[in-house]
Amino acid sequence: MTARGRFISLEGGEGAGKSTQLRALAAALRTKGLTVVETREPGGSGGAETIRQLLLTGQADRWTARAEALLFAAARADHVARLIRPALDNGAWVLCDRFLDSSRAYQGGANGLADADILALHRIGSQGFLPDRTFLLTLDEATAAARTKARDGDETDRIGGRDRSYHRRVAAAFAACAAQEPDRFRLVDASRAADIVTTQMLDLLVDLLP
Amino acid sequence: MTARGRFISLEGGEGAGKSTQLRALAAALRTKGLTVVETREPGGSGGAETIRQLLLTGQADRWTARAEALLFAAARADHVARLIRPALDNGAWVLCDRFLDSSRAYQGGANGLADADILALHRIGSQGFLPDRTFLLTLDEATAAARTKARDGDETDRIGGRDRSYHRRVAAAFAACAAQEPDRFRLVDASRAADIVTTQMLDLLVDLLP
Repeated sequence: MTARGRFISLEGGEGAGKSTQLRALAAALRTKGLTVVETREPGGSGGAETIRQLLLTGQADRWTARAEALLFAAARADHVARLIRPALDNGAWVLCDRFLDSSRAYQGGANGLADADILALHRIGSQGFLPDRTFLLTLDEATAAARTKARDGDETDRIGGRDRSYHRRVAAAFAACAAQEPDRFRLVDASRAADIVTTQMLDLLVDLLP
Repeated sequence: MTARGRFISLEGGEGAGKSTQLRALAAALRTKGLTVVETREPGGSGGAETIRQLLLTGQADRWTARAEALLFAAARADHVARLIRPALDNGAWVLCDRFLDSSRAYQGGANGLADADILALHRIGSQGFLPDRTFLLTLDEATAAARTKARDGDETDRIGGRDRSYHRRVAAAFAACAAQEPDRFRLVDASRAADIVTTQMLDLLVDLLP
């Protein structure tokens, strides 16, 4: 019988380097002989990718905060049921760029929905399924803004384009999530060189390796 | 200042005549000088109609029951915020072909989600917004099946195409909703001639008229 894989999420604001780190961490885990699935939210499975299009395109006020929270939870329910759980059951490790805590930070902290409501949506949609470990990549505001601008220029999606106070509320909500669940979360200073960050994350996974 | 309008939902299984009755009831209310908005779920507003396409097209197993419940709640949140509440605030009456109780009957009773969870999704998405009156159009199983077949032939959408035991669970769940809220619900025998049904519904709205 195959041992169940591990589910690892990477969280943090725009510009923290989540997708770069996810690729590097996946490569490093593969050198250890693990099967690794790389995915991201919103999206990651067929239905969830369809919902992603609704969430990330169109006008900034296309959805109310409440409808948006429900759509994120619907996409996550599809992603968990159709991709993440089956992959873990097959023994793969799953690395996910954003997961539940992004909803808590963006739809919750920044857009004003109660954290208890975001958690209720996750309980109903995905039976409260949680990562085995969550890395919160932290970055000071100025560095994050400079990196995002270097990457995207003036092109941003519906969510990346919001203002500074919005992104500050996001950062505070992420920090609150991490404080509530110290066993699940590891904070990683993402202002350092990319290879240093990857090495630290690997070190912080040693206890989960087979 | 304009008096707030009334929100009326029509519920029931396939073939009960909801859309025919909705048009007839709207026409009758307009002859009394009321402004009437006719709408339906899933859909009824721009965002909700987009979600409707995700819900009613594709394979029967396109969505898990949980993802489907979240998508219906997201569509409803958009519909309530963008169409229903503003219309009521402007003094219009809003007649809606299916609303919350259809989610309780289909995603709840028939698909196995807990009624408390469907209600929680509605609280989070639409602040628990309820109709002033809900007509449950009841019809025996054989008549419903014959009417649906006469209307659709062998063409049905993702939900209408499900089997008899499914539609029986739907009917039982609708009956349970009505039993829980006798003040909001009125049961109407939809096996009678259409004009008789419309007249009875009008009689059952007299207490809400200005």
